[in-house]
This record gives sequence, structure tokens and C-alpha cells, in this order.
Amino acid sequence: MDRDQILLTPGPLTTTLRTKKAMLKDWGSWDADFNQITKRIRSQLLSIIHGHDDYVVVPMQGSGTFSVEAAVNSVLPPNGHLLVLDNGAYCKRMATLTNKMGRKATLLSFNEREPVSPDALKKALISDASITHVGLIHCETGAGVLNPLKEISDICKEFNVGLIIDAMSSFGALPIAARDIQFDALISASGKCLESVPGMGFIFIRKAILESMQGNSQSLSLDLYDQYQYMEKTGQWRFTPPTHVVAALAEALNQFEEEGGQPARLARYKDNCKTLVNGLAKIGLEPFLDEENITPIIVTFLAPKYDQYDFKSFYNAVKEEGFILYPGKLTEIETFRVGCIGAINHKEMRQVVASMKYVLEQMAVVK
Amino acid sequence: MDRDQILLTPGPLTTTLRTKKAMLKDWGSWDADFNQITKRIRSQLLSIIHGHDDYVVVPMQGSGTFSVEAAVNSVLPPNGHLLVLDNGAYCKRMATLTNKMGRKATLLSFNEREPVSPDALKKALISDASITHVGLIHCETGAGVLNPLKEISDICKEFNVGLIIDAMSSFGALPIAARDIQFDALISASGKCLESVPGMGFIFIRKAILESMQGNSQSLSLDLYDQYQYMEKTGQWRFTPPTHVVAALAEALNQFEEEGGQPARLARYKDNCKTLVNGLAKIGLEPFLDEENITPIIVTFLAPKYDQYDFKSFYNAVKEEGFILYPGKLTEIETFRVGCIGAINHKEMRQVVASMKYVLEQMAVVK
Ligand SMILES: Cc1ncc(COP(=O)(O)O)c(C=O)c1O
Ligand SMILES: Cc1ncc(COP(=O)(O)O)c(C=O)c1O
Repeated sequence: MDRDQILLTPGPLTTTLRTKKAMLKDWGSWDADFNQITKRIRSQLLSIIHGHDDYVVVPMQGSGTFSVEAAVNSVLPPNGHLLVLDNGAYCKRMATLTNKMGRKATLLSFNEREPVSPDALKKALISDASITHVGLIHCETGAGVLNPLKEISDICKEFNVGLIIDAMSSFGALPIAARDIQFDALISASGKCLESVPGMGFIFIRKAILESMQGNSQSLSLDLYDQYQYMEKTGQWRFTPPTHVVAALAEALNQFEEEGGQPARLARYKDNCKTLVNGLAKIGLEPFLDEENITPIIVTFLAPKYDQYDFKSFYNAVKEEGFILYPGKLTEIETFRVGCIGAINHKEMRQVVASMKYVLEQMAVVK
Repeated sequence: MDRDQILLTPGPLTTTLRTKKAMLKDWGSWDADFNQITKRIRSQLLSIIHGHDDYVVVPMQGSGTFSVEAAVNSVLPPNGHLLVLDNGAYCKRMATLTNKMGRKATLLSFNEREPVSPDALKKALISDASITHVGLIHCETGAGVLNPLKEISDICKEFNVGLIIDAMSSFGALPIAARDIQFDALISASGKCLESVPGMGFIFIRKAILESMQGNSQSLSLDLYDQYQYMEKTGQWRFTPPTHVVAALAEALNQFEEEGGQPARLARYKDNCKTLVNGLAKIGLEPFLDEENITPIIVTFLAPKYDQYDFKSFYNAVKEEGFILYPGKLTEIETFRVGCIGAINHKEMRQVVASMKYVLEQMAVVK
């Protein structure tokens, strides 16, 4: 038997044994002890964005996409118009799910190697008064580009349009402070930079818009307003929560706080990222993005340009060495991705660099 | 520290340590090893209903309600008309979620102490030709009534209308064989009679209707057609699966098979139910339903008629003794519920009877 592989993927990722061990207990979802866990998680999450005054947070069953859909379904009125700033696959998904529910979404598309442009947003808002909301992906995990949260948020405020932020892969690692930026909804999930297991998301909602959400959702399961109201009234989730996933998140949040919160996590991920990028540079593997656009969440690398290389063999050989990589998500160029997030540090990064070197040597791709 | 409480609730329920321990590993959701787990689960689930020839099964993230909504959203066409046979809270929920997505649902309501009536369904189908689908809750967990699956299914076949079955709390325990009954979709979830942890559901779909589902869903997340197609093509879930929950279900299914499958599970639950009902009868606690309508899934008991009794104190005192009970879900009459399902047998049932007796004596309700 091999030891467990290290996941270098943008979620599910490697969690601590302490987090996983929190799942060794069955909880009654109706019971006061479990309600206490839910309550504490919600409070800890709000603390991360310093949002207790102006925001609430609503947990949601399902994967991250379910929470994005819940946010759009509940925040955007049926006759709303969502402009999605698009530099990758997750941006397109937000527009797709909006259209699918019969609401209007438009893409404002940019080069996927670069951040979206606040100026272009401004122009779009000036020229199209029908836009009621803007959709932004904080870190576009497709290529790994970080988008300018503060600038976009300021423009939305200036033009008095709503802002829905998918911060799935950035929340907990990159700074997001409710006192600096205003949004209607911001979405993330358990199995990302909070380093817990996947199975639930959560959505921060600005208190000022809460009542306007009533009746917007066409989905019973994904109705954030109902989920919020029921939880406030009873302390419980509306439908059966993934109790073990919730308990794991509670334990992961305790470790997050013990580590020193978001600044400490970012410092560790930056260290991971630097170790990775510098290490792979030495064996000729170059990031797809220009250096200033690389985020310490996930890094896209150009595939080695050798006939002997194919991703599948590379992936399998690196897996044999103990590391799970991630495929690229770009259509035009062959790439692979390496996550910098999870319960890992520069040690694992040095090890995976060494393993990749070994594997590429075996494949006779590098010497 | 107390030992963990025994959950006598209809999910989440008490699972074995072996099932929970399966969650002590992180899985890459893109990896072939994880895809193998998904594949094996799907095959094992199909075997339970002997459905390999005519049915497929599609897992879905989220709670059971998410899977019910996914089934209605994907099976019912936008201009369809769902008639829900109603004898309880989960029936009403199916109609509510259908209406919420802008589709037509009508309730055909019955007394919640009794099974729904096949004759009444027949009359309804004769008098309203606009009905395209029938919604049935197999075991209405609200009061615990079992509904007549075979008779309803035969009528739907005769009238050539679709049938959507919520078998959430019965699947795995009560017999459901695809060779005896025909349906379009049948829904259950991980955290019920398969005795795993909550966090995902699954939907059996008749192969013959698969293609007709394309484009029906207004929800991207809850689109069973897309989930199915993507899984067939790639072996993966469309969006991040709750990997640890999936791994636990795989381990729970192994134990299900080792125990002897559905017949063995039903025998154990029947034994649990008998031990419970007979034991509580001795201290004067009577079931709400007539004996022939009691299902060995969950039993509703009438609250003791004493001024000294209130559910909250009773619940808390029984919890102190180590057992989590479940509140009643009836509007008119005060009741409480006790689940017979989970990794427990007659021993736990005798123990909870003894504990309830002790507690009611302390409350001076029984002497
Ligand atoms: C930015 C972003 N949005 C949405 C998602 C979708 O999350 P999920 O796969 O949990 O549905 C991801 C997943 O990595 C993501 O990175
Ligand atoms: C018959 C039935 N349908 C639906 C549900 C809803 O499932 P969930 O609470 O997982 O959403 C339940 C839950 O107990 C149930 O018993």
C-alpha cells in the first residue's frame, strides 16, 4: 500500500488528518449541538471578511457551482440583466447558468491571460443602462488570473449596479475585506482555501439587499432567502445538511484561525507558489501567465515541447511518485496546472518539483 | 466526555465506524481511482433494483430534496403537469418545488394516516387528460405511511403517464424491483437506508426517457441529463463531487451487500420496529398509525397525555441518556418520531425503550 497522494489540485485538496477526523462522528441535524456548529461556522466566516456589521452568510448544500447558481437565482431579479466579466471557463459558466434559468446574461470578454478591465466595464455600463448586476470571478481558476476586485466594486457602486463575486478559489487566502469593497453576494466553498472537504458552499449577502431577494429564486433547493430565513428562525438548515462535511469545516476553520488567518495562509501559499515556479523554471517548465498575473492559488504551466511528452503519461507517472496534478483548462494551448493550496507547504512543493524532474527525465523529455 | 449518541432519526442516522473511516482519505475528483469508486457505486445501486437492463442511475450533489428537484426539473417538460398523490409533508414539498420552477403541479390529497388511493388516481387521470406525470412518495416519512408502489405504477403505465417516485427513506430497505414496477425517475439519498452519511442523492432514470430529458432543466446544477452525459463520457461528476461522502457511500454499500442486501436490511429494521413498538406499548406509548400502516422505517408516536410532558424536556432527557429522537411533523396532533433505520439493531431499541421509560418516570408521566 502506498501512502496517500498529495493533491495539487484546486479542490478537492489535501486536508489535515485533524480535519478529516472531525467526520468520525454522526450528528443529528435537528439537534442543538449541531446547530451550535453551524452558528459558529457562520460567525467565523463573517469574521474573515470583517463583515459582521453589513453582511450575513448563508451556507448551501452541494458543490461550489450550486452556490453560484443559488446566488444568481436569489439575487438577480427575473427581469435583471447580469454582465459577466469574462476571462475564463468559470466566467462563462456563470453566464450559462443565468441564461439557463431564463434570465439575461451578457459576456464582456477579455484575453484569458490577463485580468478583466475596469475601464471596459465602465464603458459597458455607460452604453447599456439595462445592466442591473455585474458578475466577477475573483481568481479565474481556469488560467489562474486574479481580477481587480476593488476597482470593479468601486465602479459598481458608482453606477449603482449589483455585484456578484465568485471567490471560490480565493476566499480565505487572498484578502477580501467588506469595509473596502461592497458587493451583493460573494461565493466560496468548503473544499478550497479553507482546506476542508468538498460538499458545501457559502454565500455572503449584503444585509441591505436581503429583503429584495424574497421570491426571486425559481429553485426551492437553491433559494438563499428561504435558507437564510429558516436558519435565522430555527438555527437549522432547511434540508438535511451534509453533517460530516459541516463538522470538518468547523475543524478546518479552527486550524485556519490557529495558523493566523488569511494573512498567514496567503504567506504559506506564496511560499508554495514561489518554490514551485522557481523549481520548475530550473527544469525548463514555464508558467503560461506573465509573472505579475500569477496567483498563489493555482499555476498554469506550458506543456514541455517534446514529442515524447503527453499529459496522461506525465500525470500517471507523477501520481506514481505520490502527487496528483491537474489538467489544463485552456482550449488553444496545451498546459497543465499545479495547485498551491491545501494543507501543504514548501516541502511538498520541493518534493513535487523533484518528482516531476525525475519523471520528465524518465520520459527523456529533460536530461 | 460522553459516548456518541445513537441517532433515531430518519437521516442523518447512525453509521458504522467503518463507513466513517472511509472519509479519512482525500481523493482527486478528476483521478481514475475516484472515477472507479463512482462507477462501482452506480453499478451496485442499479443491482439493488435489478435495473441494469432498463435503467441508469445518476448521482447528484446536495441533500435529498436537491435530487427530487433535479428529477422533476429534468423529467417533467416545461409544459408538463405533475399530479402529486399527497398524504404528507414531503408530497407537498414535491408540488411546491414544481410550482416554484414555473411548472404545473396539482395535489390529490388524502388523509395523512393512510396510504394514497390507486382508485382515486385512476379517477383523476380519467377526468383530467392534461396530467402528464404522477408524483408519489414511497414512504411518506412525515407520519411514516407506506404508499402502494405497484398499484400506482401499474395505473401510470395503463394511462401512459410518467411516474416520479421519491423513495428517499425506503430505498435499500423496502423492496423495489425494476422488473415489477415501471417509473421514469426514482430518487433516494446516501444518508438513509444505505446507512451512509448525508451529502448526495441519486436518481434512477428509465433509459427509454433519457433523450426526452435534454434541455428540460432550467437549472445548470440540477440538470440530470447533463450530469448523466458528462459522467458517461468522462467517468467524472460535472462539478466537484463530495469526495469523502462518495467514499463513505462506497464503503456503506459494501457492508449492505455483506449483510445480505435489501432483504436482510428489511429483516433487521422490522425487528427494530417490533422491539420498539412492543416495548413502548408497555409504558403506554401508542403509535399514531393503525398497525397495518406502520412502516419499519420511522414510527410516529402520540405524545403522552400528561400535563407534565413537553417534547423539548423529553427530548433533552432522552438525549442525556444517549439517544436522539425526532420531532413529529404533523400539524394537528402532538407526536414524536423514532427512526428504526441506521447501523443499529434490537439491542439499541431495547435500550432506548428503557431510557424513555426512565425519563418519563422522572418526569412523573408514567409510574
Ligand atoms: C472560480 C471557481 N468557480 C466555480 C467553481 C466550481 O466549483 P465546483 O466544482 O465545486 O462546483 C470553481 C471550482 O474550482 C472555481 O475555481
Ligand atoms: C420521503 C422524503 N423525501 C424527501 C426528503 C428530503 O431529504 P433532505 O432532507 O435530504 O433534503 C426526506 C427526508 O427525510 C424524505 O424522508
